[in-house]
Amino acid sequence: MNDEVEPAVPDAGPTVPELQRRLAEFAAARSWQQYHTPKNLASALTVEAGELLEIFQWLTPEQAADVMSDARSAHRVRDEVADVLAYLLQLCTVLEVDPLRALAEKIERNESRFPVP
Amino acid sequence: MNDEVEPAVPDAGPTVPELQRRLAEFAAARSWQQYHTPKNLASALTVEAGELLEIFQWLTPEQAADVMSDARSAHRVRDEVADVLAYLLQLCTVLEVDPLRALAEKIERNESRFPVP
Amino acid sequence: MNDEVEPAVPDAGPTVPELQRRLAEFAAARSWQQYHTPKNLASALTVEAGELLEIFQWLTPEQAADVMSDARSAHRVRDEVADVLAYLLQLCTVLEVDPLRALAEKIERNESRFPVP
Amino acid sequence: MNDEVEPAVPDAGPTVPELQRRLAEFAAARSWQQYHTPKNLASALTVEAGELLEIFQWLTPEQAADVMSDARSAHRVRDEVADVLAYLLQLCTVLEVDPLRALAEKIERNESRFPVP
Repeated sequence: MNDEVEPAVPDAGPTVPELQRRLAEFAAARSWQQYHTPKNLASALTVEAGELLEIFQWLTPEQAADVMSDARSAHRVRDEVADVLAYLLQLCTVLEVDPLRALAEKIERNESRFPVP
Repeated sequence: MNDEVEPAVPDAGPTVPELQRRLAEFAAARSWQQYHTPKNLASALTVEAGELLEIFQWLTPEQAADVMSDARSAHRVRDEVADVLAYLLQLCTVLEVDPLRALAEKIERNESRFPVP
Repeated sequence: MNDEVEPAVPDAGPTVPELQRRLAEFAAARSWQQYHTPKNLASALTVEAGELLEIFQWLTPEQAADVMSDARSAHRVRDEVADVLAYLLQLCTVLEVDPLRALAEKIERNESRFPVP
Repeated sequence: MNDEVEPAVPDAGPTVPELQRRLAEFAAARSWQQYHTPKNLASALTVEAGELLEIFQWLTPEQAADVMSDARSAHRVRDEVADVLAYLLQLCTVLEVDPLRALAEKIERNESRFPVP
């Protein structure tokens, strides 16, 4: 052992494929895969998006912009973001869609569709 | 220049932070950031989730499972997945939420909440 | 006064305009009208529709068809139906849309659009 | 025939039960009843609520309040209100829920739950 400092490697955090694998293992361990049809997952995604919107629905723009400065509402936002992402990724796993490539391609299409003035 | 072949690096595809940066640049170039309040983005996310659900709403489970084998409906699915992800990522950018960490933490909470039988 | 029995008049129940008036009075008494912008009401309508869908999202078709035979889930369904209708009627009040005429006209348009085979 | 004018009876417009009957006849004539499971109708309701919200999602409060003064957007609002109501009423028919009584009862519960200050 020596005193050399390890080069600073930023913790990259989890990747989308890793999260998809963990979600699949989580569901398999609980025999929940039978419920994970595309239709059910698309329903659950919409329901969770509604729960995320619910946080903001009666807020003024100022209150909405400030939602992360309160620990309880910040936790609620992160929790609902996680739920939306969880169902979106599980739907993508079931349908064999790569969500990141799908978005990259959409951005390219939109760049043609909405040219910069 | 030489003839050496580059070591085969699998194309990892776009990452979430890269897509967030591209979405921010796209909106900035068109002066659309003014519309990207948390409330508007949460609304747009819910609207797009509904459009994704619309693809499946009248299908039987068999038809829904087969949706990617038709080129036109496969394109529609990828397009709506991209829209949902785009608004989710833009909302996360505005609120400074890391969506991948939020989901990793949620999976950990769910592992305690729903222990494997 | 006499002993004659009144002819049996079925209790027609509340009408849509009566419910709209009661909802307006309820909101006014609590100074909630300031929150009842068209955008907020349309958001709340979508959120509540999601809560109604949530009841059904993991059920099999058989379980879904049977949802009213359990007192607790029957109450939950009626409660969410009421919430959806409440926000739809309040939105119609604010926008001065007659929801029943709008639907009658839509049915007429659909009769031309989808002729009986 | 004579020249007597009929007494002015205000046209009460369609009632909810009449609209429910017309929607049921419309679906039966096209053999669409097979699709009208509670789960599918709740999905369709949520999708249509999203389409109604879509009209308002990028508007300022001022623009949203003014949406009925433009003939085209007014038509779009009435059309989406009709779609939301159509699926809500069809869901109520299938589940044998009286939507107007459900709402009247909910208003009563809310009067206890949120007493006037």
